[in-house]
Amino acid sequence: MSIDPLQNISIVLVKPQFAGNIGAVSRAMKNMGLSRLLLISPAQSPLSPEAKMMATSARDILEGASIFSTLEEALCGFRWVAGTSARKGRLRGPFVSPREICPEIISFARSIPVAILFGPEDRGLTNEELAPCQALISLPTHAQLRSLNLAQAVMILCYELYMASQSAGSSAPGPFPKLAQFQMVEGMYAHLEDLLLRIGFLDPKNPKRIMHTLRRIFGRANLSDRDVAILRGIFRQLEWYATQKDKENA
Amino acid sequence: MSIDPLQNISIVLVKPQFAGNIGAVSRAMKNMGLSRLLLISPAQSPLSPEAKMMATSARDILEGASIFSTLEEALCGFRWVAGTSARKGRLRGPFVSPREICPEIISFARSIPVAILFGPEDRGLTNEELAPCQALISLPTHAQLRSLNLAQAVMILCYELYMASQSAGSSAPGPFPKLAQFQMVEGMYAHLEDLLLRIGFLDPKNPKRIMHTLRRIFGRANLSDRDVAILRGIFRQLEWYATQKDKENA
Repeated sequence: MSIDPLQNISIVLVKPQFAGNIGAVSRAMKNMGLSRLLLISPAQSPLSPEAKMMATSARDILEGASIFSTLEEALCGFRWVAGTSARKGRLRGPFVSPREICPEIISFARSIPVAILFGPEDRGLTNEELAPCQALISLPTHAQLRSLNLAQAVMILCYELYMASQSAGSSAPGPFPKLAQFQMVEGMYAHLEDLLLRIGFLDPKNPKRIMHTLRRIFGRANLSDRDVAILRGIFRQLEWYATQKDKENA
Repeated sequence: MSIDPLQNISIVLVKPQFAGNIGAVSRAMKNMGLSRLLLISPAQSPLSPEAKMMATSARDILEGASIFSTLEEALCGFRWVAGTSARKGRLRGPFVSPREICPEIISFARSIPVAILFGPEDRGLTNEELAPCQALISLPTHAQLRSLNLAQAVMILCYELYMASQSAGSSAPGPFPKLAQFQMVEGMYAHLEDLLLRIGFLDPKNPKRIMHTLRRIFGRANLSDRDVAILRGIFRQLEWYATQKDKENA
């Protein structure tokens, strides 16, 4: 049980625009002891000369990066996912700071694979891309310039992860070995959304708003496989109940 | 007494090689609430297109940067100076981490101008460039890649300064309003070195080694104007004593 938690954390760049940034991200990751890089539909190749130049001695991370066409594919198998943002819109919170959350991430990563998402340079992550995240991390910046360079954003997060891994020292693996996999939790949300639409709790024109809040609640709860099974059992029971009511009213 | 401490901290880039890095440094500074940039003999112009591109909305910092030909000129008037390094050679310590020192720097910067030095991309700061520093800051990195990009190094330090400024909140100005100016302290070291050479305490072939240790000791002491005056008084007295002994032995 001596997993290096830093090696169990994947940095996921969603639609990065510039190869140089992918290279600089690789270097920042290697500086802080991380190695796993996932790219969702990058606009430029991670093997372009500019990426290699910025990566310097972290070309191994660039060359080992996995490329996916959708976020959903990339996240399959992960059991804990966090998104990052510099903006704090009304629908997007609650946010935690890197310093608050990184000790917890290190604790998770001692036993389960963890992914941390970063959005494209120009717009950051959308609410839809943030939806699968159990935690939303807001990177602290001064009001005089909120927009962080992508590689700088990754550096701040990786630096806090490294610092947390150092101070955690030889502490025990976290108590979360059974966190449910991404696709199981997503299946549960789909089930819940269907149910809530059916019973008229969600506005069919705008179901995402309430679902966002529910995702935040369940996200914070760090659901296990068993939790997901129990919740889906409740949802099925509610569906059965609704069906009975429909029949009675027919 | 409402100085913003972040505005009282200057980032000093010693002989930066690449304009793009100067631009990226400006952006990182602005992200974290700093504004004062000093450049010592930059190899490329901070107003080149690449610098401006990397600076994005921090062009005001680039355009306001002060350029000097020597470090000594640039540091005139500062009362507290720290150097940064990723290496930890035998002669270069002791080092502190950004997290340890930044609350103290914020405290200093509430009343006195502070400078933090970063070396060139390829070699970092030399021992000679580190000599005037009261503190040596080692940026934490993982053993798998120690070499930080210059702008990433500046970001880590500025991020810790910003975090320290936030948690310090409205705390009182630091108790160090009378720290001696850089040039006064340097004058004292020159005086001390002369004295120690004269009395045969320093090896004339290699005086810097012992002087390094003495600089570290006095650096940690945060000397005030009065302290420097007292020390120079002692040195003068010792010189007088040595002169008397020379006469006696003549």
